[in-house]
Amino acid sequence: MYSSSQTDNARPFLTWQRILDWAQEHYRYRIFNRDEKVPARAGLLYLVHRGAIRLVGNSQISASLKQKHSTSRIPLVAAEEAFLGFVGAGQPFEIVAQSPFNLQSFAHIDQTAVIWLYWHDLDNWPHFRREVLDAFRHQHQRKLLWLSTLGQRRTIDRLLGFLTLLIEEYGEPCEQGYYLPWTLTHAQIGSAIGSTRVTVTRLMGKLRQRNLIQHYGDNLICMPTEAVHQQRA
Amino acid sequence: MYSSSQTDNARPFLTWQRILDWAQEHYRYRIFNRDEKVPARAGLLYLVHRGAIRLVGNSQISASLKQKHSTSRIPLVAAEEAFLGFVGAGQPFEIVAQSPFNLQSFAHIDQTAVIWLYWHDLDNWPHFRREVLDAFRHQHQRKLLWLSTLGQRRTIDRLLGFLTLLIEEYGEPCEQGYYLPWTLTHAQIGSAIGSTRVTVTRLMGKLRQRNLIQHYGDNLICMPTEAVHQQRA
Repeated sequence: MYSSSQTDNARPFLTWQRILDWAQEHYRYRIFNRDEKVPARAGLLYLVHRGAIRLVGNSQISASLKQKHSTSRIPLVAAEEAFLGFVGAGQPFEIVAQSPFNLQSFAHIDQTAVIWLYWHDLDNWPHFRREVLDAFRHQHQRKLLWLSTLGQRRTIDRLLGFLTLLIEEYGEPCEQGYYLPWTLTHAQIGSAIGSTRVTVTRLMGKLRQRNLIQHYGDNLICMPTEAVHQQRA
Repeated sequence: MYSSSQTDNARPFLTWQRILDWAQEHYRYRIFNRDEKVPARAGLLYLVHRGAIRLVGNSQISASLKQKHSTSRIPLVAAEEAFLGFVGAGQPFEIVAQSPFNLQSFAHIDQTAVIWLYWHDLDNWPHFRREVLDAFRHQHQRKLLWLSTLGQRRTIDRLLGFLTLLIEEYGEPCEQGYYLPWTLTHAQIGSAIGSTRVTVTRLMGKLRQRNLIQHYGDNLICMPTEAVHQQRA
């Protein structure tokens, strides 16, 4: 949980433990396999206990399919799915169904454990509710930064901005710098930045040539410390 | 304010009036001209009393400027500015400074009135604080939808998705359907969807030809009712 004092040490372990006990007692706790859909409903609040959630958006808007008196016989293409970010352990998420887009949540890794509650269940833990709401404030600010980078015209800038934001938020230290502890396919990255798998593969190569990113371990992305510093300069 | 019961009638006018009185008494109330910068600081909470705020993000990340041993003598281009959305009357906003992006707020129209508070000032109005936090939750969900449309590959789809979301949130009824009550330049739209002024102008023409959008009044954008229904079908 993103706590108001912004340090891990201040994390309210006691409250978490109580909520965890309560959730298991009330069958509000479930473990998901990798890529399994978390059937989140509007009006409920979800807390990630372990693992990571992947948020995905489905667009039902397409300018081309809406032509009046269209005589096209081309079958409707599957709605484009966009990767919208991760929700890590200790973080809350919620899905409010809103046309013309459709938000969904998936376990991004095996053994992802999720608790769910009604908002009024938090009446017993007002401090915790405040923290949940502060966590959403924080997530909202992060999404504004994400929108900033998606407004950039050149795809390579959007790609670098996107990776920088993810590693800034979820990165774990390694010898070379910081790495993103979860894999993302090039198709998933493309779906986040309005590009294609092929283009992402090509541009990732360019970023590696310029030493702005590196491979790490088994298919993970690392950002060397000097690249991070350069960008902040 | 986006209130929990989601109706305008439930808007807590009494609390608003008290906060307004308090803000004016404590010189926490200021009126801005169109395009004037609202000097928002991290840690403070801002409430729009009248008018509309335009949020803008500045990216300091660019893959091309970070080349090691670059021999380029091309001068640094000005950082790209991205339009990140509006904050309407009754809505809160905050700016948390976070590298490598820089968020800013501007009055979008004349006579935009803004109140500012420290979060602890809200200790006197716990219900109101709850509403502010719920409003941020709502804004966060809207930004996820916005990210969904920016993940679409084709610029015309991103453009239509972007306009649909804005009109869905801020649209006011007119004879043909709903219109966005504020102007946006094609450059501003381009900066939001990762495109250029020229491309936006061309694609807006296409959307008009397909009757997905229309002109309204003095340079405003209207979405005809049938287009809205088509998209939700």
